[in-house]
Amino acid sequence: MTFLTVELERQTTAGTDIVDITDEVAQAVRRSSVAQGRVLVFVPGSTASITTIEYESGVVDDLRRAIDRMAPCDMEYEHNARWGDGNGYAHVRAALMGPGIDIPVQEGRLVLGTWQQVVLCDFDNRPRRRRILVQVMGE
Amino acid sequence: MTFLTVELERQTTAGTDIVDITDEVAQAVRRSSVAQGRVLVFVPGSTASITTIEYESGVVDDLRRAIDRMAPCDMEYEHNARWGDGNGYAHVRAALMGPGIDIPVQEGRLVLGTWQQVVLCDFDNRPRRRRILVQVMGE
Amino acid sequence: MTFLTVELERQTTAGTDIVDITDEVAQAVRRSSVAQGRVLVFVPGSTASITTIEYESGVVDDLRRAIDRMAPCDMEYEHNARWGDGNGYAHVRAALMGPGIDIPVQEGRLVLGTWQQVVLCDFDNRPRRRRILVQVMGE
Repeated sequence: MTFLTVELERQTTAGTDIVDITDEVAQAVRRSSVAQGRVLVFVPGSTASITTIEYESGVVDDLRRAIDRMAPCDMEYEHNARWGDGNGYAHVRAALMGPGIDIPVQEGRLVLGTWQQVVLCDFDNRPRRRRILVQVMGE
Repeated sequence: MTFLTVELERQTTAGTDIVDITDEVAQAVRRSSVAQGRVLVFVPGSTASITTIEYESGVVDDLRRAIDRMAPCDMEYEHNARWGDGNGYAHVRAALMGPGIDIPVQEGRLVLGTWQQVVLCDFDNRPRRRRILVQVMGE
Repeated sequence: MTFLTVELERQTTAGTDIVDITDEVAQAVRRSSVAQGRVLVFVPGSTASITTIEYESGVVDDLRRAIDRMAPCDMEYEHNARWGDGNGYAHVRAALMGPGIDIPVQEGRLVLGTWQQVVLCDFDNRPRRRRILVQVMGE
Protein backbone atom coordinates (compact mmCIF):
# COMPACT_ATOMS: atom_id res chain seq x y z
CA MET A 1 0.00 0.00 0.00
CA THR A 2 1.51 3.32 -1.06
CA PHE A 3 0.71 6.78 0.24
CA LEU A 4 2.31 9.74 -1.47
CA THR A 5 1.40 13.34 -0.69
CA VAL A 6 2.63 16.08 -2.99
CA GLU A 7 2.07 19.74 -2.18
CA LEU A 8 1.48 22.07 -5.10
CA GLU A 9 1.74 25.82 -4.89
CA ARG A 10 -0.11 28.17 -7.19
CA GLN A 11 -0.25 31.94 -7.31
CA THR A 12 -3.79 33.13 -8.00
CA THR A 13 -5.30 36.48 -8.95
CA ALA A 14 -8.11 38.41 -7.26
CA GLY A 15 -11.68 37.52 -8.29
CA THR A 16 -12.77 34.02 -9.24
CA ASP A 17 -9.54 32.60 -10.60
CA ILE A 18 -10.01 29.13 -12.13
CA VAL A 19 -6.69 27.34 -12.67
CA ASP A 20 -5.97 24.05 -14.46
CA ILE A 21 -3.85 21.77 -12.24
CA THR A 22 -4.38 18.49 -14.12
CA ASP A 23 -0.74 18.12 -15.21
CA GLU A 24 0.59 18.46 -11.67
CA VAL A 25 -1.97 15.94 -10.37
CA ALA A 26 -1.09 13.47 -13.15
CA GLN A 27 2.59 13.93 -12.38
CA ALA A 28 2.04 13.10 -8.70
CA VAL A 29 0.26 9.91 -9.77
CA ARG A 30 3.22 8.93 -11.99
CA ARG A 31 5.71 9.66 -9.21
CA SER A 32 3.79 7.44 -6.79
CA SER A 33 3.99 4.40 -9.13
CA VAL A 34 0.46 3.54 -7.96
CA ALA A 35 -1.26 1.37 -10.60
CA GLN A 36 -4.70 1.08 -8.98
CA GLY A 37 -6.01 3.50 -6.40
CA ARG A 38 -7.25 7.03 -6.05
CA VAL A 39 -6.02 10.55 -5.61
CA LEU A 40 -7.47 13.19 -3.29
CA VAL A 41 -7.01 16.77 -4.47
CA PHE A 42 -7.71 19.17 -1.59
CA VAL A 43 -7.23 22.89 -1.00
CA PRO A 44 -6.87 23.98 2.63
CA GLY A 45 -8.63 27.29 3.32
CA SER A 46 -12.20 28.55 3.37
CA THR A 47 -12.33 30.62 0.16
CA ALA A 48 -11.31 28.09 -2.51
CA SER A 49 -12.58 24.83 -4.02
CA ILE A 50 -11.54 21.98 -6.31
CA THR A 51 -13.73 20.60 -9.11
CA THR A 52 -13.46 19.32 -12.69
CA ILE A 53 -14.47 21.08 -15.89
CA GLU A 54 -13.62 21.18 -19.59
CA TYR A 55 -10.88 23.78 -19.35
CA GLU A 56 -12.01 25.92 -22.28
CA SER A 57 -12.25 29.67 -21.69
CA GLY A 58 -15.91 29.82 -22.75
CA VAL A 59 -17.09 27.23 -20.23
CA VAL A 60 -14.81 28.64 -17.56
CA ASP A 61 -16.48 32.05 -18.00
CA ASP A 62 -19.90 30.39 -17.94
CA LEU A 63 -19.03 28.70 -14.64
CA ARG A 64 -17.79 31.99 -13.21
CA ARG A 65 -21.13 33.59 -14.08
CA ALA A 66 -23.17 30.77 -12.55
CA ILE A 67 -21.15 31.00 -9.32
CA ASP A 68 -21.72 34.73 -9.31
CA ARG A 69 -25.48 34.19 -9.55
CA MET A 70 -25.33 31.80 -6.57
CA ALA A 71 -23.33 34.14 -4.34
CA PRO A 72 -22.98 37.57 -5.98
CA CYS A 73 -20.02 39.80 -5.12
CA ASP A 74 -22.20 42.87 -4.78
CA MET A 75 -24.71 41.65 -2.20
CA GLU A 76 -24.68 42.46 1.49
CA TYR A 77 -22.97 39.82 3.60
CA GLU A 78 -22.99 39.55 7.39
CA HIS A 79 -19.36 38.48 7.24
CA ASN A 80 -18.39 41.76 5.58
CA ALA A 81 -20.42 43.82 8.04
CA ARG A 82 -18.56 42.19 10.95
CA TRP A 83 -15.04 41.73 9.63
CA GLY A 84 -14.75 44.27 6.84
CA ASP A 85 -12.60 42.09 4.60
CA GLY A 86 -15.20 42.11 1.83
CA ASN A 87 -14.85 38.42 0.90
CA GLY A 88 -18.08 37.05 2.40
CA TYR A 89 -19.15 35.91 -1.06
CA ALA A 90 -15.92 33.90 -1.41
CA HIS A 91 -16.59 31.99 1.83
CA VAL A 92 -20.11 31.13 0.73
CA ARG A 93 -18.96 29.91 -2.70
CA ALA A 94 -16.29 27.67 -1.21
CA ALA A 95 -18.72 26.13 1.30
CA LEU A 96 -21.20 25.37 -1.50
CA MET A 97 -18.62 23.79 -3.82
CA GLY A 98 -16.50 21.95 -1.25
CA PRO A 99 -12.74 21.77 -0.59
CA GLY A 100 -11.71 18.69 -2.54
CA ILE A 101 -12.45 15.77 -4.86
CA ASP A 102 -11.29 12.19 -5.26
CA ILE A 103 -10.33 10.78 -8.67
CA PRO A 104 -9.80 7.09 -9.44
CA VAL A 105 -6.44 5.84 -10.72
CA GLN A 106 -6.32 2.83 -13.05
CA GLU A 107 -3.30 1.37 -14.83
CA GLY A 108 -1.26 4.17 -13.36
CA ARG A 109 -3.38 6.96 -14.86
CA LEU A 110 -6.06 9.38 -13.73
CA VAL A 111 -9.49 8.23 -14.87
CA LEU A 112 -10.94 11.40 -16.43
CA GLY A 113 -12.99 12.13 -19.51
CA THR A 114 -11.16 13.36 -22.63
CA TRP A 115 -12.29 16.93 -22.05
CA GLN A 116 -12.23 16.89 -18.26
CA GLN A 117 -9.60 18.83 -16.29
CA VAL A 118 -8.98 19.26 -12.56
CA VAL A 119 -9.24 22.89 -11.48
CA LEU A 120 -8.56 25.03 -8.45
CA CYS A 121 -11.25 27.72 -8.02
CA ASP A 122 -9.96 30.58 -5.91
CA PHE A 123 -12.81 32.91 -4.95
CA ASP A 124 -10.92 35.33 -2.72
CA ASN A 125 -10.90 39.07 -3.42
CA ARG A 126 -7.12 39.36 -3.31
CA PRO A 127 -4.25 37.41 -4.92
CA ARG A 128 -3.30 34.35 -2.88
CA ARG A 129 -0.48 31.85 -2.80
CA ARG A 130 -2.43 28.59 -2.60
CA ARG A 131 -1.18 25.28 -1.32
CA ILE A 132 -2.97 22.23 -2.81
CA LEU A 133 -2.55 18.73 -1.40
CA VAL A 134 -2.44 15.84 -3.85
CA GLN A 135 -2.59 12.57 -1.96
CA VAL A 136 -2.18 9.40 -4.03
CA MET A 137 -2.98 6.06 -2.44
CA GLY A 138 -3.12 2.56 -3.85
CA GLU A 139 -0.95 -0.32 -4.91
CA MET B 1 -6.18 -4.51 1.75
CA THR B 2 -8.56 -5.04 -1.16
CA PHE B 3 -9.10 -2.83 -4.19
CA LEU B 4 -11.89 -3.75 -6.58
CA THR B 5 -12.96 -1.51 -9.46
CA VAL B 6 -16.18 -2.30 -11.27
CA GLU B 7 -17.23 -0.37 -14.36
CA LEU B 8 -20.94 0.21 -14.83
CA GLU B 9 -22.51 1.29 -18.10
CA ARG B 10 -25.78 3.18 -18.31
CA GLN B 11 -27.67 4.52 -21.28
CA THR B 12 -29.10 7.97 -20.52
CA THR B 13 -31.63 10.21 -22.25
CA ALA B 14 -31.23 13.85 -23.35
CA GLY B 15 -31.98 16.52 -20.73
CA THR B 16 -31.23 16.11 -17.03
CA ASP B 17 -31.53 12.35 -16.65
CA ILE B 18 -31.25 11.23 -13.01
CA VAL B 19 -30.67 7.49 -12.71
CA ASP B 20 -30.65 5.29 -9.60
CA ILE B 21 -27.46 3.16 -9.51
CA THR B 22 -27.61 2.07 -5.85
CA ASP B 23 -28.13 -1.63 -6.60
CA GLU B 24 -25.10 -1.83 -8.86
CA VAL B 25 -22.94 -0.02 -6.28
CA ALA B 26 -24.14 -2.34 -3.50
CA GLN B 27 -23.42 -5.36 -5.71
CA ALA B 28 -19.83 -4.18 -6.28
CA VAL B 29 -19.40 -3.91 -2.51
CA ARG B 30 -20.70 -7.48 -2.02
CA ARG B 31 -18.42 -8.80 -4.79
CA SER B 32 -15.37 -7.18 -3.14
CA SER B 33 -15.99 -8.97 0.20
CA VAL B 34 -14.81 -5.76 1.88
CA ALA B 35 -16.22 -5.57 5.43
CA GLN B 36 -14.90 -2.15 6.42
CA GLY B 37 -13.87 0.51 3.94
CA ARG B 38 -15.31 2.89 1.43
CA VAL B 39 -16.50 3.06 -2.14
CA LEU B 40 -15.80 5.83 -4.62
CA VAL B 41 -18.50 6.33 -7.27
CA PHE B 42 -17.15 8.47 -10.10
CA VAL B 43 -18.36 9.44 -13.59
CA PRO B 44 -15.64 10.38 -16.08
CA GLY B 45 -16.73 13.27 -18.34
CA SER B 46 -17.53 16.94 -17.92
CA THR B 47 -21.33 16.94 -18.26
CA ALA B 48 -22.41 14.50 -15.53
CA SER B 49 -22.30 14.18 -11.72
CA ILE B 50 -22.90 11.71 -8.90
CA THR B 51 -24.88 12.52 -5.76
CA THR B 52 -27.38 10.94 -3.35
CA ILE B 53 -31.11 11.64 -3.08
CA GLU B 54 -34.33 9.98 -2.03
CA TYR B 55 -35.17 8.43 -5.37
CA GLU B 56 -38.82 9.41 -5.46
CA SER B 57 -40.10 11.02 -8.65
CA GLY B 58 -41.37 14.16 -6.86
CA VAL B 59 -38.00 14.99 -5.27
CA VAL B 60 -36.16 14.06 -8.45
CA ASP B 61 -38.28 16.59 -10.36
CA ASP B 62 -37.68 19.17 -7.62
CA LEU B 63 -33.91 18.64 -7.94
CA ARG B 64 -34.14 18.98 -11.72
CA ARG B 65 -35.89 22.33 -11.29
CA ALA B 66 -33.34 23.62 -8.76
CA ILE B 67 -30.48 22.68 -11.09
CA ASP B 68 -32.28 24.45 -13.92
CA ARG B 69 -32.50 27.61 -11.83
CA MET B 70 -28.73 27.44 -11.14
CA ALA B 71 -27.73 26.96 -14.79
CA PRO B 72 -30.77 27.38 -17.05
CA CYS B 73 -30.84 25.64 -20.46
CA ASP B 74 -32.14 28.72 -22.20
CA MET B 75 -29.49 31.27 -21.20
CA GLU B 76 -26.62 32.45 -23.36
CA TYR B 77 -23.41 30.53 -22.75
CA GLU B 78 -19.96 31.41 -24.07
CA HIS B 79 -19.33 27.72 -24.65
CA ASN B 80 -22.27 27.51 -27.04
CA ALA B 81 -21.23 30.66 -28.90
CA ARG B 82 -17.76 29.16 -29.50
CA TRP B 83 -18.44 25.48 -30.03
CA GLY B 84 -22.07 25.38 -31.11
CA ASP B 85 -22.85 22.12 -29.29
CA GLY B 86 -25.48 23.80 -27.12
CA ASN B 87 -24.53 22.02 -23.88
CA GLY B 88 -22.79 24.87 -22.04
CA TYR B 89 -25.38 24.61 -19.27
CA ALA B 90 -24.50 20.92 -18.82
CA HIS B 91 -20.81 21.69 -18.29
CA VAL B 92 -21.63 24.33 -15.68
CA ARG B 93 -23.99 22.02 -13.77
CA ALA B 94 -21.42 19.22 -13.65
CA ALA B 95 -18.67 21.54 -12.41
CA LEU B 96 -20.95 22.83 -9.64
CA MET B 97 -22.06 19.37 -8.48
CA GLY B 98 -18.78 17.48 -8.89
CA PRO B 99 -17.85 14.18 -10.55
CA GLY B 100 -18.05 11.72 -7.67
CA ILE B 101 -18.76 10.82 -4.06
CA ASP B 102 -17.34 8.48 -1.44
CA ILE B 103 -19.60 6.28 0.70
CA PRO B 104 -18.50 4.38 3.82
CA VAL B 105 -18.81 0.59 3.96
CA GLN B 106 -19.43 -1.11 7.31
CA GLU B 107 -20.09 -4.81 7.98
CA GLY B 108 -19.97 -5.34 4.23
CA ARG B 109 -22.76 -2.87 3.46
CA LEU B 110 -23.09 0.67 2.12
CA VAL B 111 -23.81 3.10 4.94
CA LEU B 112 -26.75 5.08 3.56
CA GLY B 113 -29.96 6.40 5.07
CA THR B 114 -33.13 4.38 4.58
CA TRP B 115 -34.41 6.74 1.89
CA GLN B 116 -31.04 7.63 0.36
CA GLN B 117 -30.03 6.38 -3.09
CA VAL B 118 -26.91 6.89 -5.22
CA VAL B 119 -27.72 8.61 -8.51
CA LEU B 120 -26.01 9.48 -11.76
CA CYS B 121 -27.07 12.93 -13.02
CA ASP B 122 -26.47 13.26 -16.74
CA PHE B 123 -26.93 16.85 -17.86
CA ASP B 124 -25.98 16.51 -21.53
CA ASN B 125 -28.36 17.57 -24.30
CA ARG B 126 -28.14 14.24 -26.13
CA PRO B 127 -28.43 10.59 -25.06
CA ARG B 128 -25.12 9.22 -23.78
CA ARG B 129 -23.69 5.83 -22.95
CA ARG B 130 -22.08 6.57 -19.55
CA ARG B 131 -19.32 4.65 -17.88
CA ILE B 132 -19.31 4.90 -14.06
CA LEU B 133 -16.40 3.69 -11.94
CA VAL B 134 -17.19 2.01 -8.65
CA GLN B 135 -14.00 1.53 -6.66
CA VAL B 136 -14.29 -0.41 -3.42
CA MET B 137 -11.37 -0.39 -1.01
CA GLY B 138 -10.99 -1.78 2.48
CA GLU B 139 -10.42 -4.98 4.37
CA MET C 1 -2.93 0.05 7.25
CA THR C 2 -5.42 1.30 9.84
CA PHE C 3 -9.17 1.76 9.49
CA LEU C 4 -11.04 3.38 12.35
CA THR C 5 -14.69 4.36 12.13
CA VAL C 6 -16.15 6.57 14.84
CA GLU C 7 -19.83 7.39 14.94
CA LEU C 8 -20.79 10.82 16.19
CA GLU C 9 -24.27 11.78 17.27
CA ARG C 10 -25.61 15.32 17.16
CA GLN C 11 -28.99 16.74 18.05
CA THR C 12 -30.04 19.38 15.51
CA THR C 13 -32.78 21.98 15.42
CA ALA C 14 -35.45 22.57 12.74
CA GLY C 15 -34.46 24.80 9.81
CA THR C 16 -30.96 24.92 8.35
CA ASP C 17 -28.88 24.04 11.38
CA ILE C 18 -25.12 24.34 10.70
CA VAL C 19 -23.04 22.62 13.39
CA ASP C 20 -19.27 22.66 13.93
CA ILE C 21 -17.97 19.09 14.31
CA THR C 22 -14.25 19.78 13.78
CA ASP C 23 -13.20 18.83 17.32
CA GLU C 24 -14.87 15.43 17.14
CA VAL C 25 -13.30 14.73 13.74
CA ALA C 26 -9.85 15.76 15.01
CA GLN C 27 -10.32 13.54 18.07
CA ALA C 28 -11.13 10.52 15.86
CA VAL C 29 -7.91 11.17 13.93
CA ARG C 30 -5.90 11.27 17.18
CA ARG C 31 -7.53 8.08 18.43
CA SER C 32 -6.62 6.27 15.20
CA SER C 33 -2.91 7.08 15.55
CA VAL C 34 -2.84 7.50 11.76
CA ALA C 35 0.08 9.73 10.76
CA GLN C 36 -0.56 9.94 7.02
CA GLY C 37 -3.92 9.25 5.44
CA ARG C 38 -7.35 10.72 5.11
CA VAL C 39 -10.66 10.95 6.89
CA LEU C 40 -14.10 10.61 5.34
CA VAL C 41 -16.85 12.56 7.13
CA PHE C 42 -20.27 11.34 5.97
CA VAL C 43 -23.85 11.87 7.09
CA PRO C 44 -26.30 9.09 6.20
CA GLY C 45 -29.73 10.45 5.20
CA SER C 46 -31.14 12.53 2.38
CA THR C 47 -31.72 15.89 4.08
CA ALA C 48 -28.24 16.75 5.41
CA SER C 49 -24.74 17.50 4.09
CA ILE C 50 -21.14 17.94 5.20
CA THR C 51 -18.89 20.79 4.08
CA THR C 52 -16.23 23.15 5.43
CA ILE C 53 -16.59 26.84 6.29
CA GLU C 54 -15.09 29.48 8.55
CA TYR C 55 -17.35 28.89 11.52
CA GLU C 56 -18.16 32.51 12.25
CA SER C 57 -21.82 33.40 12.75
CA GLY C 58 -21.80 36.04 9.98
CA VAL C 59 -20.56 33.67 7.27
CA VAL C 60 -22.78 30.88 8.56
CA ASP C 61 -25.82 33.16 8.14
CA ASP C 62 -24.57 34.17 4.68
CA LEU C 63 -24.34 30.49 3.68
CA ARG C 64 -27.84 29.84 5.03
CA ARG C 65 -29.17 32.66 2.85
CA ALA C 66 -27.36 31.42 -0.28
CA ILE C 67 -28.77 27.93 0.25
CA ASP C 68 -32.22 29.43 0.70
CA ARG C 69 -31.89 31.21 -2.64
CA MET C 70 -30.94 27.91 -4.34
CA ALA C 71 -33.85 25.93 -2.88
CA PRO C 72 -36.25 28.24 -1.03
CA CYS C 73 -38.42 26.89 1.79
CA ASP C 74 -41.51 28.65 0.51
CA MET C 75 -41.64 27.35 -3.08
CA GLU C 76 -43.90 24.58 -4.32
CA TYR C 77 -42.23 21.17 -4.32
CA GLU C 78 -43.58 18.00 -5.94
CA HIS C 79 -42.29 16.05 -2.97
CA ASN C 80 -44.49 18.06 -0.61
CA ALA C 81 -47.54 17.69 -2.86
CA ARG C 82 -47.09 13.89 -2.83
CA TRP C 83 -45.90 13.14 0.68
CA GLY C 84 -47.07 16.13 2.72
CA ASP C 85 -43.99 16.24 4.94
CA GLY C 86 -43.03 19.73 3.78
CA ASN C 87 -39.30 19.08 3.53
CA GLY C 88 -38.89 18.92 -0.27
CA TYR C 89 -36.52 21.87 -0.09
CA ALA C 90 -34.30 19.97 2.38
CA HIS C 91 -33.94 17.01 0.01
CA VAL C 92 -32.96 19.29 -2.87
CA ARG C 93 -30.36 21.13 -0.78
CA ALA C 94 -28.75 17.90 0.40
CA ALA C 95 -28.55 16.49 -3.14
CA LEU C 96 -26.89 19.70 -4.37
CA MET C 97 -24.32 19.84 -1.57
CA GLY C 98 -23.57 16.12 -1.21
CA PRO C 99 -23.39 13.76 1.78
CA GLY C 100 -19.71 13.85 2.70
CA ILE C 101 -16.17 15.11 2.26
CA ASP C 102 -12.67 13.69 2.53
CA ILE C 103 -9.91 15.56 4.39
CA PRO C 104 -6.19 14.71 4.24
CA VAL C 105 -4.28 13.77 7.39
CA GLN C 106 -0.60 14.61 7.67
CA GLU C 107 1.69 14.15 10.71
CA GLY C 108 -1.34 12.93 12.62
CA ARG C 109 -3.38 16.07 12.04
CA LEU C 110 -6.25 17.21 9.84
CA VAL C 111 -4.97 19.39 7.01
CA LEU C 112 -7.33 22.37 7.16
CA GLY C 113 -6.85 26.10 6.79
CA THR C 114 -6.56 28.20 9.94
CA TRP C 115 -10.12 29.46 9.62
CA GLN C 116 -11.65 26.31 8.15
CA GLN C 117 -14.02 24.12 10.15
CA VAL C 118 -15.92 20.92 9.30
CA VAL C 119 -19.68 21.38 9.56
CA LEU C 120 -22.82 19.30 9.47
CA CYS C 121 -25.63 21.10 7.61
CA ASP C 122 -29.01 19.73 8.60
CA PHE C 123 -31.73 21.05 6.31
CA ASP C 124 -34.72 19.15 7.67
CA ASN C 125 -37.81 20.96 8.91
CA ARG C 126 -37.85 19.19 12.26
CA PRO C 127 -35.21 18.51 14.93
CA ARG C 128 -33.22 15.36 14.17
CA ARG C 129 -30.79 13.14 16.00
CA ARG C 130 -28.04 12.80 13.38
CA ARG C 131 -25.46 10.07 13.13
CA ILE C 132 -22.22 11.10 11.39
CA LEU C 133 -19.57 8.60 10.30
CA VAL C 134 -15.94 9.59 10.67
CA GLN C 135 -13.74 7.03 8.94
CA VAL C 136 -9.99 7.47 9.35
CA MET C 137 -7.67 5.43 7.15
CA GLY C 138 -3.92 5.51 6.72
CA GLU C 139 -0.73 4.38 8.32
